[in-house]
Amino acid sequence: MSCFIDVLHESDFTIHNIPFAIISSSESQAPRAASAIGSYAIDLLALAQSGAFGKCSVLGNGVAARVFAEPTLNAFMALGRPAWREARAAIQAALSATGTSKLREDEELRQKVLLPLEKVKFHLPANIGDYTDFYASKEHATNVGVMFRGKENALMPNWVHLPVGYHGRASSVVVSGTSIRRPNGLTLNAETKLPEFKASRKLDYELEVAAYVGTGSKLGDSIAVGDAEEHIFGLSLMNDWSARDIQQYEYVPLGPFLGKNFGTTVSPWIVTLDALEPFRVAQPKQDPSPAAYLSAGSLDAYDVKLEVAIKPPTENTPPIVVSRSNLKYMYWSFKQMLAHHTVNGCNMRPGDLLGSGTISGPTPTSLGSLLELSKNGNEPFQLAPSVTRAFIEDGDEIVISGHCSKEVDGQRIRIGFGEARGVVVPAKSL
Amino acid sequence: MSCFIDVLHESDFTIHNIPFAIISSSESQAPRAASAIGSYAIDLLALAQSGAFGKCSVLGNGVAARVFAEPTLNAFMALGRPAWREARAAIQAALSATGTSKLREDEELRQKVLLPLEKVKFHLPANIGDYTDFYASKEHATNVGVMFRGKENALMPNWVHLPVGYHGRASSVVVSGTSIRRPNGLTLNAETKLPEFKASRKLDYELEVAAYVGTGSKLGDSIAVGDAEEHIFGLSLMNDWSARDIQQYEYVPLGPFLGKNFGTTVSPWIVTLDALEPFRVAQPKQDPSPAAYLSAGSLDAYDVKLEVAIKPPTENTPPIVVSRSNLKYMYWSFKQMLAHHTVNGCNMRPGDLLGSGTISGPTPTSLGSLLELSKNGNEPFQLAPSVTRAFIEDGDEIVISGHCSKEVDGQRIRIGFGEARGVVVPAKSL
Repeated sequence: MSCFIDVLHESDFTIHNIPFAIISSSESQAPRAASAIGSYAIDLLALAQSGAFGKCSVLGNGVAARVFAEPTLNAFMALGRPAWREARAAIQAALSATGTSKLREDEELRQKVLLPLEKVKFHLPANIGDYTDFYASKEHATNVGVMFRGKENALMPNWVHLPVGYHGRASSVVVSGTSIRRPNGLTLNAETKLPEFKASRKLDYELEVAAYVGTGSKLGDSIAVGDAEEHIFGLSLMNDWSARDIQQYEYVPLGPFLGKNFGTTVSPWIVTLDALEPFRVAQPKQDPSPAAYLSAGSLDAYDVKLEVAIKPPTENTPPIVVSRSNLKYMYWSFKQMLAHHTVNGCNMRPGDLLGSGTISGPTPTSLGSLLELSKNGNEPFQLAPSVTRAFIEDGDEIVISGHCSKEVDGQRIRIGFGEARGVVVPAKSL
Repeated sequence: MSCFIDVLHESDFTIHNIPFAIISSSESQAPRAASAIGSYAIDLLALAQSGAFGKCSVLGNGVAARVFAEPTLNAFMALGRPAWREARAAIQAALSATGTSKLREDEELRQKVLLPLEKVKFHLPANIGDYTDFYASKEHATNVGVMFRGKENALMPNWVHLPVGYHGRASSVVVSGTSIRRPNGLTLNAETKLPEFKASRKLDYELEVAAYVGTGSKLGDSIAVGDAEEHIFGLSLMNDWSARDIQQYEYVPLGPFLGKNFGTTVSPWIVTLDALEPFRVAQPKQDPSPAAYLSAGSLDAYDVKLEVAIKPPTENTPPIVVSRSNLKYMYWSFKQMLAHHTVNGCNMRPGDLLGSGTISGPTPTSLGSLLELSKNGNEPFQLAPSVTRAFIEDGDEIVISGHCSKEVDGQRIRIGFGEARGVVVPAKSL
């Protein structure tokens, strides 16, 4: 595949990608669907109106123009994988350097369809009915367990038998670029052993990847692990902001609550499983073997390189990378999470979000949270010559990015997720 | 207040109530807003079209006709308490035996507006963006804690300092009358100490009351405890179905998940706080005093008599009452729950649902779950002469009801919540 638009080798948005997002622009402030190529957003409503989806048998121009005009991707997600696949192929055809492409040949149309990325505004890509967060990295679960419950109880006996997860808060999922206010809450005073109300002093990020459910399921039904990929629209980056001191005081026995629900940042772009297909790799060996309803193939991980960087407010520097991890470290796959989530009949709706949980790798440089990097604040680290960090300080911007890259037939192909970023602003005065 | 329609003394829907719901009917299958009087649903769209809200300064006929035509109450909820109050007063005026009432005088209009309750179909009253469940009854938390964690760790130290809660699943909240399928899942085999996949053998109900958020709050903002009642639209009955064996295996460390999210039943009717005002009583004394952000008046409980009944499939009997509890037993008030939930900046949206958690009272006959009634199945009890129960059996119908009743100026006034009912159907074969 070659593209008629010049795309830099290190771009996240090559013709191999074709991710989906919701944008608005100064030309049209109505939020609508978009894809991306190089440094441009692709206005999919304008592209549909030009007839680019005319050859699609499931989608078609009429349906495309309807679903791409929506302010969320939910209606497109609900159409199912054949429609997502057709849409991606039709967009690739429109961008192709060869074959018929009205977009390539019509400059006026190009002006309408291709919008410089720096000029568009991103919105939350879906109306998220429910957001569930899992805990699927064994390294992370072990690291945190040691700190919160001691070495003996670090990994609960259930952890290797099922993908542990909990319900998160959907209302506070925000798109990249939204500021996050440091939360106030009750935390334990170590001396008095009593709670005190104050701003969190242990504000943290969590490096995560999240899956959006495309087609859902009915209450009482289950999604079999073998069918689960047909239900997953795609993946995005996620920062599950966490206030460790609030979390630690509140979380027994019903799990995290105010320590998490003050904000969760997602990237604007959702990368489809079809785009990720060339980057499929083996997931970690599962021992013991999980129950039959969780047994799937072994090639259910994706090789997605992930980075966390911090831009401190006091330094004139680009964001400084503090961690490099990889989606392939996840012990439980998204397929398994979706099969588990629905095995009891819990229903799924288009746009539902499943977070991976913090993705930590096996090395000290691949830890997905400051809790792990600074050993719960006990070992602050050097961020820049004059800057140390244990947890997030006011004004810090946290930037999560991710991409895949691989040699295929002598050609390096690369696709990326863009960024999930957010600046922390000071707590409200008490 | 006297009503021109005959209403039985024991009716839940007296002129003092005026609850809200979403209905459809054979005349019009479009879901729309309704209230109730005696044995009739009141079609609020038809009432608005007749001009009954013309004297409302916030609401008015135009806005009323718009919001009451919606398939959920969210738009009405978003208008705020002055609008809810005006609507209730205007409906009461239309039903009044005295004063001007087009409804009373126009028989044709009465035919359109008053629909026999047994002929309407109920829908979920709101689009629930997020559902949070609390754990606000000290008796219940203590009873369950003893069974799951032993007497020493029954009530965690944090419990008396904050209203413990967790995020529930919004997609599986269903309206009264919806069947609930017994869930399959992993439970611990006590002998092998390994999990096994099977249908839950410890299916339970939880007697709860839930508050619907009316007006919301922005991300980063908090709702002060003193303002919280202005944000609460009203209360409804709730059954938080629970699979105790699945729950016990999965819930450490992140809380309940598949043991809860296969279904939550709410009553069709939402009773406003204004209707509940005469039934306000003192809540249990809070010792230690909670933090300032949770400190409110002491008259923040409501005297709502609650009942759970079971109708076994094998007996030709009305539902048999197994428990009588009261909303006033709740240690934490809904005001405190809402203030706590938002103190960290977590945003609220109209239609969000806050469950009380199981409401158990201090006596053996006021326990809000079978877990407590049968001591985790160890002490089955006699339901009918030939029927015993430890947990729910297939075909059992669980019926939760609730009402308030009080002598005011020599007249007994009563308002009720209707019912939250559901039949359990067998699990899917494994």
